[in-house]
Amino acid sequence: MREAEVKSLQDLVEITPNLSSHFYNDTIAPHFRARTSLTSAFIPAEFTNWRDEQRAWRETAILFDQSHHMPELFLKGKDALRLLERVGINSFKNFVPGKAKQLVVCTPDGYIIGDCILYCLGEDNFELVSGMAVLNWVQYQAEVGRYDVSIERDDPTPFNPKGARINYRFQLDGPLAGRIFSELVEGEAPKIPFFNTARVRIAGHEVLVLRHGMAGHHGVELSGPYEELAAVRSAIVAHGAQYGLVQGGTRSYFSTIFESGWMAYPVPAIYTGEALRGFREWLPANGWEAQIQLGGSFYSDRMEDYYVTPWDLGYDRIMKFDHDFIGREALEEMSHQPHRTKVTLVWNQDDVVNVLASQFGDGPRYKALELPVSFYGFPQFDEVRNGAGRLVGLSCHCGYSNNYGVMLSLAMVDASSAEIGSEVVLTWGEPSGGSRKPHVERHEQVRIRATIAPVPYAASVRELKSATIGVAARA
Amino acid sequence: MREAEVKSLQDLVEITPNLSSHFYNDTIAPHFRARTSLTSAFIPAEFTNWRDEQRAWRETAILFDQSHHMPELFLKGKDALRLLERVGINSFKNFVPGKAKQLVVCTPDGYIIGDCILYCLGEDNFELVSGMAVLNWVQYQAEVGRYDVSIERDDPTPFNPKGARINYRFQLDGPLAGRIFSELVEGEAPKIPFFNTARVRIAGHEVLVLRHGMAGHHGVELSGPYEELAAVRSAIVAHGAQYGLVQGGTRSYFSTIFESGWMAYPVPAIYTGEALRGFREWLPANGWEAQIQLGGSFYSDRMEDYYVTPWDLGYDRIMKFDHDFIGREALEEMSHQPHRTKVTLVWNQDDVVNVLASQFGDGPRYKALELPVSFYGFPQFDEVRNGAGRLVGLSCHCGYSNNYGVMLSLAMVDASSAEIGSEVVLTWGEPSGGSRKPHVERHEQVRIRATIAPVPYAASVRELKSATIGVAARA
Repeated sequence: MREAEVKSLQDLVEITPNLSSHFYNDTIAPHFRARTSLTSAFIPAEFTNWRDEQRAWRETAILFDQSHHMPELFLKGKDALRLLERVGINSFKNFVPGKAKQLVVCTPDGYIIGDCILYCLGEDNFELVSGMAVLNWVQYQAEVGRYDVSIERDDPTPFNPKGARINYRFQLDGPLAGRIFSELVEGEAPKIPFFNTARVRIAGHEVLVLRHGMAGHHGVELSGPYEELAAVRSAIVAHGAQYGLVQGGTRSYFSTIFESGWMAYPVPAIYTGEALRGFREWLPANGWEAQIQLGGSFYSDRMEDYYVTPWDLGYDRIMKFDHDFIGREALEEMSHQPHRTKVTLVWNQDDVVNVLASQFGDGPRYKALELPVSFYGFPQFDEVRNGAGRLVGLSCHCGYSNNYGVMLSLAMVDASSAEIGSEVVLTWGEPSGGSRKPHVERHEQVRIRATIAPVPYAASVRELKSATIGVAARA
Repeated sequence: MREAEVKSLQDLVEITPNLSSHFYNDTIAPHFRARTSLTSAFIPAEFTNWRDEQRAWRETAILFDQSHHMPELFLKGKDALRLLERVGINSFKNFVPGKAKQLVVCTPDGYIIGDCILYCLGEDNFELVSGMAVLNWVQYQAEVGRYDVSIERDDPTPFNPKGARINYRFQLDGPLAGRIFSELVEGEAPKIPFFNTARVRIAGHEVLVLRHGMAGHHGVELSGPYEELAAVRSAIVAHGAQYGLVQGGTRSYFSTIFESGWMAYPVPAIYTGEALRGFREWLPANGWEAQIQLGGSFYSDRMEDYYVTPWDLGYDRIMKFDHDFIGREALEEMSHQPHRTKVTLVWNQDDVVNVLASQFGDGPRYKALELPVSFYGFPQFDEVRNGAGRLVGLSCHCGYSNNYGVMLSLAMVDASSAEIGSEVVLTWGEPSGGSRKPHVERHEQVRIRATIAPVPYAASVRELKSATIGVAARA
């Protein structure tokens, strides 16, 4: 096959002798979490400084601009809900206008393709936000399954042919976010339970509110017509100033997950198996799925070793066998087997300082730790071993929390090694001096001890993540 | 005076009760070294990663794009050279077409306003690059002195009303830069002594070459019509690839000075004194000079304490009392007094690691060290004390060299404390928890030991900085 003939992901898979190695060395992840320079024309890396911006989401309030980096898909039509039920492992009972959910979709084999935020905007009217692989899967299923739906896609700003978006999107979070929100709303602020929505007016504009947080406090996601972005943002920033509201740049934004525990953008389990050939033929050879960028100390020639299950990511809690969906049979089977479980790893401070200190003098240089976002693969997979040296899990997104003064990572470990407080050892850095990824400097590997902790790591997130807004927070 | 009436720098000085405090707390330096986000639409922070980019200028070659961040001034007319001689402390003997120099200008009191690169493009035809305060001073002197000259200004791209520049500008540097340059040039490559220029053809376009380096090897600065930027860059990048040429982003670019020793953008000594009132009245209240941003552990209510002399910056070597120039009398007087001298400080590794380690746990957080560019004022002034605790100098630009595995800063210290190898103590961080500058997080101060080293720090820079290109480098 000549290069010009490589049109689909399936073509790419067929001409690539070793897909893992290709993704480990020669691709560049298009997602903005890994390439914030793409949105730097719209959102600065830091408004003030990321340390103080992190503090804001624990001590006062922060406003994140999510208008530019996430793809969206609008789904309408009489078969829309039926399609969503067919792909989602979630229950769709009582999924009516005013509700939203974290939609999780799996392959027929029960491995995760991805997750996204799903709004029920109205009867037969849905909006899917983030999760490029999910949006592609939904569109593919709509087409091959002949569902009576219409689909509109809206790409991230830098790739959007219009240079603009349909909707702006903000995240207002932190302990004072609820108060700021309530005061901003014209008239009485509604009480909004977790993952419910409401329509309010702010600065004369109608705003769709979702009770959901990135940093994990009493957060709200606000969206509306893109043309109204500046007016709504100005109103929020102006009113919030008295409460210490700050705007968050990309450095702080992409460091929310370490404290709040969202395992963003897993490897979609679509690269192998005949059952997914049709999807791979449908996907382009230069799309998101063709450009994932593996990184970290764990490497396997088998792509399947990177696939994850709902249990790995803690989504077994939202999986419901109350409807027929793609992957159900395999997942029911899996449910009787041992699982990995999602935990937070708290990195040993001495071992972290050892990595930082290696940047000085002539000794071996370990993989540099950029703060606050330290992962350099997208996704990242670092080996996690127990005291006996056995591989017991994989550590993924890692970074620094100024609020707690710790390096954290989100990991999936065998249930038998997941006891809170127990110690594991992470391998930091890639083998053989590092992969060919251009943003990875030459380095050596080193071991970092880590302690298993709950996920979400932040106690306030565990307490407030699901609380209703508009009522007093639990102290 | 009402705010609307504050039109000139002089107005700002008059209404500001404490100018040092204002600059220390409430301004935001417009220069791109401090705000690389302004040029991020044109130049990424990193092309690969800044560590490998730093290595390139010592081991292979690097191409920096200087097209966007520096202001320029074009000066023509029969009085042009006379004006330059009037403002420059440099000798202008034999300053003919084909020559360039680092122009240094001083106040009547002999304190530095700034420095810039000055090209003699032709008879009565000059180009001044960088050094906003110098460009303003030259234009002001031209106007009040009634010189028969014409002046054209060209602002940095983000502030340029045309959204473009007159010239592109590249820096090609590193041990293989000379070879790459010579092979790129159509026909035989000229021999170009230090700070001489030549006109060559690259990829079919005429290019002006200055033998001058930022990183300090056999560097050349290349410029030409802005429309030809992409064509010339493509040719350089394509040909250089075989030699390991990489492009440098803003993070590595602005970290060249620690190894190569250029004290960029000193505080212009223009805020006080009746002799400069006219200049201050001429300068706008919102220009570059009105927005300098002081930072670091040294703070003084007297603006004069931030002023520097040619000796402080090592420019006494290029000062020549062979012509009449502004400041000459004061400088001749000063030449008989003791001076500070420019040195490199090599920070104690244990003390640096102590600062890095303070980001973890509950203990005091010292001012974070961002790598590779660690200064957070523009300009920065950190106290330097001797063993007895006496203030013996000021440390300015500071940052990290991956090539040497050290934290370095450029400092001005009393000649009596400038012995190579002797130890001083630097105070890191601002007093009282930190200034109000929004990019400075809350922190505590800490002492960092440092050793006096030569400037430039890199031995290769000391050896090759002034070498002719086009002939074999000294090994």
